[in-house]
Amino acid sequence: MQKILVANRGEIALRVMRSAREMGIKTVAVYSDADRDALHVRYADEAVHIGESPSAKSYLAGEKIIAACKQTGARAIHPGYGFLSENAAFARMVREAGLILIGPSPEAMEIMGNKLSAKAAALKYDIPMVPGTEEAITDIEEAKRRAVEVGFPILIKAAAGGGGKGMRIVDAAADFEEQMALAVSEATSAFGDGSVFIERYVSSPRHIEIQVLGDTHGNILHLFERDCSVQRRHQKVIEEAPSSVLTPEIRRQMGKCAVDVARSVNYTGAGTVEFIMDEQLNFYFLEMNTRLQVEHPVTELITGIDLVKEQIRIARGEAISFKQEDLEINGHAIELRVYAEDPDNNFLPDIGTLQTYVTPKGPGVRVDDGFEQGMEIPIYYDPMIAKLITYGKDRDEAIERMLRAIDEYNITGITTTLGFGKFVMQHPAFTSGNFDTHFVKKYFTPGSLQNSTDDEAMIAALVMERLLSEKKVQTIDVAEAVAGNWLKNRKEF
Amino acid sequence: MQKILVANRGEIALRVMRSAREMGIKTVAVYSDADRDALHVRYADEAVHIGESPSAKSYLAGEKIIAACKQTGARAIHPGYGFLSENAAFARMVREAGLILIGPSPEAMEIMGNKLSAKAAALKYDIPMVPGTEEAITDIEEAKRRAVEVGFPILIKAAAGGGGKGMRIVDAAADFEEQMALAVSEATSAFGDGSVFIERYVSSPRHIEIQVLGDTHGNILHLFERDCSVQRRHQKVIEEAPSSVLTPEIRRQMGKCAVDVARSVNYTGAGTVEFIMDEQLNFYFLEMNTRLQVEHPVTELITGIDLVKEQIRIARGEAISFKQEDLEINGHAIELRVYAEDPDNNFLPDIGTLQTYVTPKGPGVRVDDGFEQGMEIPIYYDPMIAKLITYGKDRDEAIERMLRAIDEYNITGITTTLGFGKFVMQHPAFTSGNFDTHFVKKYFTPGSLQNSTDDEAMIAALVMERLLSEKKVQTIDVAEAVAGNWLKNRKEF
Repeated sequence: MQKILVANRGEIALRVMRSAREMGIKTVAVYSDADRDALHVRYADEAVHIGESPSAKSYLAGEKIIAACKQTGARAIHPGYGFLSENAAFARMVREAGLILIGPSPEAMEIMGNKLSAKAAALKYDIPMVPGTEEAITDIEEAKRRAVEVGFPILIKAAAGGGGKGMRIVDAAADFEEQMALAVSEATSAFGDGSVFIERYVSSPRHIEIQVLGDTHGNILHLFERDCSVQRRHQKVIEEAPSSVLTPEIRRQMGKCAVDVARSVNYTGAGTVEFIMDEQLNFYFLEMNTRLQVEHPVTELITGIDLVKEQIRIARGEAISFKQEDLEINGHAIELRVYAEDPDNNFLPDIGTLQTYVTPKGPGVRVDDGFEQGMEIPIYYDPMIAKLITYGKDRDEAIERMLRAIDEYNITGITTTLGFGKFVMQHPAFTSGNFDTHFVKKYFTPGSLQNSTDDEAMIAALVMERLLSEKKVQTIDVAEAVAGNWLKNRKEF
Repeated sequence: MQKILVANRGEIALRVMRSAREMGIKTVAVYSDADRDALHVRYADEAVHIGESPSAKSYLAGEKIIAACKQTGARAIHPGYGFLSENAAFARMVREAGLILIGPSPEAMEIMGNKLSAKAAALKYDIPMVPGTEEAITDIEEAKRRAVEVGFPILIKAAAGGGGKGMRIVDAAADFEEQMALAVSEATSAFGDGSVFIERYVSSPRHIEIQVLGDTHGNILHLFERDCSVQRRHQKVIEEAPSSVLTPEIRRQMGKCAVDVARSVNYTGAGTVEFIMDEQLNFYFLEMNTRLQVEHPVTELITGIDLVKEQIRIARGEAISFKQEDLEINGHAIELRVYAEDPDNNFLPDIGTLQTYVTPKGPGVRVDDGFEQGMEIPIYYDPMIAKLITYGKDRDEAIERMLRAIDEYNITGITTTLGFGKFVMQHPAFTSGNFDTHFVKKYFTPGSLQNSTDDEAMIAALVMERLLSEKKVQTIDVAEAVAGNWLKNRKEF
């Protein structure tokens, strides 16, 4: 593997190229119109222009990526995260073109890409799932029997629903029949289908995920957990490793489960098994992400392992060079995603030019970014400017360094999540470690966040309005495409 | 300790302020005329102008530093390295002013600041010294008897000499009498004193030093070694931890010796015990540096300990919060000093403006610097621009990252040691770990280095000529002072 094409942009393209360069591997960048002057283009040994700015015409255009490989002689593709990274059809195209995708097999992607088949695969290994009905039901008596088995509080959700519609939380058996009747009737009128699922409601959930690595020799191991419970609108914004709540025994159990989930699809490469955890530290399988995560650096800092290099070595057919028992957790790492977003305005994207851009330095600070002073944040893509990662001998020191690094970070011209990060680092719920995925909703109240909504159509409309009013785009069609893409990107990682 | 004054400049002033800020301690900067716009001045919570640019009028003016403390209410002083950091008289002034010096006692500084008293203190603990005569001798017969005891090769050096004058290396007993006679006669004619010392000649020496920490409760421990064998003109330029030659047993022995040396003066704070090591891994005490070293970050990276924070805690009277057995080496770290010097031109300083200044980022890279794009490197001080430190899971990865980081570092307007660093990282002697303090002399030949000389007067003349010809200074007096200072600074760290 002498040359790798990186089918991505921004910080992750640079991140991958850095590891490749350290391994003596040449890199090829691809870029859209909007990224002509991007850092990843300058960093690579070669760069190929692959189309217009909207992702569908460039970073999502699999055939153009493959053509760029042929043109440059790159034998392997690193997809980063987002874009084509979990696209099984693209993975097949790559295979058929005689190239290597640095990632799992299309089969593993496909199984884990679908919630039902992922669950079915995981069940072979007796992985804990949120207790509940396997199939949709309508009968109130049967539902009550199942609800009692599952245990309260219970979540009733319409089988045909989505986005929270037709969901009801029931705290005690006494209220169940009335709420179930209402849920069925609501679902019938809303979706023309009254059937519902019943499952245990996790009222104070933490998002805990386990990093895994698998090679083509059948070795699979885990690199401990990341706690990604601080989220805004169901999307991660602050992640850390290790979690402040796990005991060594639960860490061991979760690690074993994650390895088993990976084994259920003969997983190769780097992947992440996501769990939801309740207040009693019960954990339940959510899904597996078949790619490198945005938040992988916190794992790198506590284990000393370069995950991108491991991905490349595995793709070359090498066996993982260390054993599970060689790995240990040293210190604590926290990542803050520095987004071009306005936390006081519902975390809406704030796109513009980095008039000042000075990054923090010194002990325990890592900045993974893809911009420099004077650059514009393109409107077409995920509005992440950088990942600010701090490391300390313990959690307190990682937090102190994050606060110091946030103060050193100097960005003008764009509103970012840096101030929000400072708020979180100083909040007693975070510093004590006693928080869940409702952190933002519970504690963060400045500005218009009170009026927060999960209604995607409304958010898309606001984004579109802004793009048009600031003349970032010229037509409603483009605004709609961009707004849609932006929402989609935010959900992907 | 609510507020600390940092009696230094450049990268180390920023370094200290970062740790203080993380601890919630306010900082006071001091600055000379040349440093009015320096980063450390902007970084501090307060800044006090203390005088003209030559160090003697500002950074070495102890009474001005103490006055600045009184003015700002700072209760403690961190001296960094160089300047007043090992000045026992200053340490006494600080004590008498009722302030705290973040460092060892003046008594410890005094004993370790003198080679003879340092040796005498260390001998109480049976620390290995380079074998040789304790006192100067002239008698050839006695000299031969001692030489045979010490073992060949032997170094004969004039008691009154210095700078290599009157030194002779004798490989075998058969040659001794003739060489001894010549040495005595040379010394007599050169210094009017024919007496000489005889000691074992270490032909392939490595410079290995041990980091120690002592607190006011009698705890003293070590944080393993740094290998600083890559030097240019007897001054360190590349350092690493751990050393590639030490065995665990020798590491343990050296650690114990270093702790004993520190104990011999009831050492408090951070200090470094320097040893010379021969090819058979015998090690001999050289001296103790009673301050933070330039190269302390490599120790921080492999141990996870923030040495500046430990210094501050110790100065506050706290006990060291960890035990010797809690410490372990994780991974490998290398530091390259990025000097404004021209390696092809005898490492002469190349002072000017940083027209481009872009620092490397990403995994395993730490940059400690005190400059930004557009700034001028002042002619008055040590010409170090930055310390580039890389970390990897092993030595190979630390080297690969150093190479990658050197490539990412973009400095124009000034010639630096970056290219020299690249040369070293790719040289088989360095990559194999099989090198000594003669690395530069043995392997680095480009440009005028062949004509390298240790003659300080000649170097000072070259520096002066350059300062004057480029109109960096206006008069010969100032040029002389600056050149002298530059040489002195280079020797200090």
